[in-house]
Amino acid sequence: MDLTINSQQRCFEGTQGFYSHDSAICGGAMNFAVYQPPQAKDGAKVPMVTFLSGLTCTEENFTAKAGAQRVAAELGLMLLMPDTSPRGCGYPGEDDDYDLGSGAGFYLDATQAPWSARYRMYSYITRELPALIAEHFPVDAGRQGIFGHSMGGHGALTIHLKNPGVYRSVSAFAPVCAPSQCPWGRKAFTAYLGEDETLWEDYDSCALIRRQPSDAKIFIDQGAEDPFLSEQLKPDLLVAACEDAGQHFEFRMQPDYDHSYYFIQTFVEDHLRHHAKTLT
Amino acid sequence: MDLTINSQQRCFEGTQGFYSHDSAICGGAMNFAVYQPPQAKDGAKVPMVTFLSGLTCTEENFTAKAGAQRVAAELGLMLLMPDTSPRGCGYPGEDDDYDLGSGAGFYLDATQAPWSARYRMYSYITRELPALIAEHFPVDAGRQGIFGHSMGGHGALTIHLKNPGVYRSVSAFAPVCAPSQCPWGRKAFTAYLGEDETLWEDYDSCALIRRQPSDAKIFIDQGAEDPFLSEQLKPDLLVAACEDAGQHFEFRMQPDYDHSYYFIQTFVEDHLRHHAKTLT
Repeated sequence: MDLTINSQQRCFEGTQGFYSHDSAICGGAMNFAVYQPPQAKDGAKVPMVTFLSGLTCTEENFTAKAGAQRVAAELGLMLLMPDTSPRGCGYPGEDDDYDLGSGAGFYLDATQAPWSARYRMYSYITRELPALIAEHFPVDAGRQGIFGHSMGGHGALTIHLKNPGVYRSVSAFAPVCAPSQCPWGRKAFTAYLGEDETLWEDYDSCALIRRQPSDAKIFIDQGAEDPFLSEQLKPDLLVAACEDAGQHFEFRMQPDYDHSYYFIQTFVEDHLRHHAKTLT
Repeated sequence: MDLTINSQQRCFEGTQGFYSHDSAICGGAMNFAVYQPPQAKDGAKVPMVTFLSGLTCTEENFTAKAGAQRVAAELGLMLLMPDTSPRGCGYPGEDDDYDLGSGAGFYLDATQAPWSARYRMYSYITRELPALIAEHFPVDAGRQGIFGHSMGGHGALTIHLKNPGVYRSVSAFAPVCAPSQCPWGRKAFTAYLGEDETLWEDYDSCALIRRQPSDAKIFIDQGAEDPFLSEQLKPDLLVAACEDAGQHFEFRMQPDYDHSYYFIQTFVEDHLRHHAKTLT
């Protein structure tokens, strides 16, 4: 599979790159960013942690604002930052709402037209993109973790729960914990997956945990002043599901923090150390 | 002086805020950002380091991308990030070029019409803004440092050299070292200061060092792969001036790094520790 290098820059003695490629699964060009730590050289393969971003984001937000490269360089972790959706599909309404279409792929495989042709972020993130990365970067595919923010926290949790042997460590910042039960999730799932809510459970962390908890520890930070906390994120539902199902978890409510990258940059080091504990 | 709080967010247990106010010196609204470290509470006053940004930047670039708050929180330093120029003056050509007018104030007091009415960033940064900060934030005005990037590195060096007793510590990332001798500087100085090049010396680090070196150590990081290195930045001229004048300095040429915030975030900790050595 071919890869276009859009830029590569030295950062903490490693390499921060932005790339694009033609995705077969998403039916068009897709962008992503990779940070290669300094340990990734002379043929050495390193573990990789994928970060999934939230609504409206691209591959650049976390890359530029989280301060994660410093910690990844210390721990020897590769970071993979995918975009949040296909772009420029030309579907009606694709760019009308911040919470549907462009920038709002929700890390699922859409089954409803027109989205089903290209909005297949679940298969893209779990199959096509890792294969491309393994071909072009010195990654140890047996040591992968996943984390994310908001919509991307939902993505990280569900992708881990459905692939616990591949994504062996998981964490999230302010995740959408129960998309079937919040406005963002219900709107997106209705459009992408249709009206039959039983089919939504396959992309709902709470439902997945109750069905089959994983052996990993789910690590979550949530800002207590996050404006989306009670209406959209609903971590209480995830905590209840974990407790009921015996899922190992650590949930930290962080007083005074909000939903922004100033919150993420404060705690990103704790998250990467959580992943490194399993992966290195 | 009144202050408008545009946002305040928790970050590393301190407060990252964005503010605006009516500037008398710049004749209109000005924006800036302040990071208050966790040590700035219960009446305790902390040292402050001002960061001056480069061409095209606002108060947000360094604030969002440099990862400086983590280190400032550890060291107990307040950070002040001003905007890079007045905005919306309505002058002909104000928004035409990235290197003149909006986003390109060059931290000087313009003497040429129409710029002279509002492009007075030198007086703004050294007089009006610190007074406003002292009124609204718990800063110890006797312990101040200054640093910056590119055009802002030029600003930091010249402001320190002209006020060594106020800005007691100084550093720069990839500074414009000799604006009188590079295209960015010559264009801006001609527009803002006029054709008489002898008047430019008052805003040229190399000329200022040769005139009167300071007692501080000038600390500079420069990326060896910076695309502006030889045409615009010219650190060799600054090194020569320091050596000739007996100015204490440390210049680090960093292999493989460029001009971006990925370069800045890599070395910002070293810079803040350099300032803390003098200020704390």
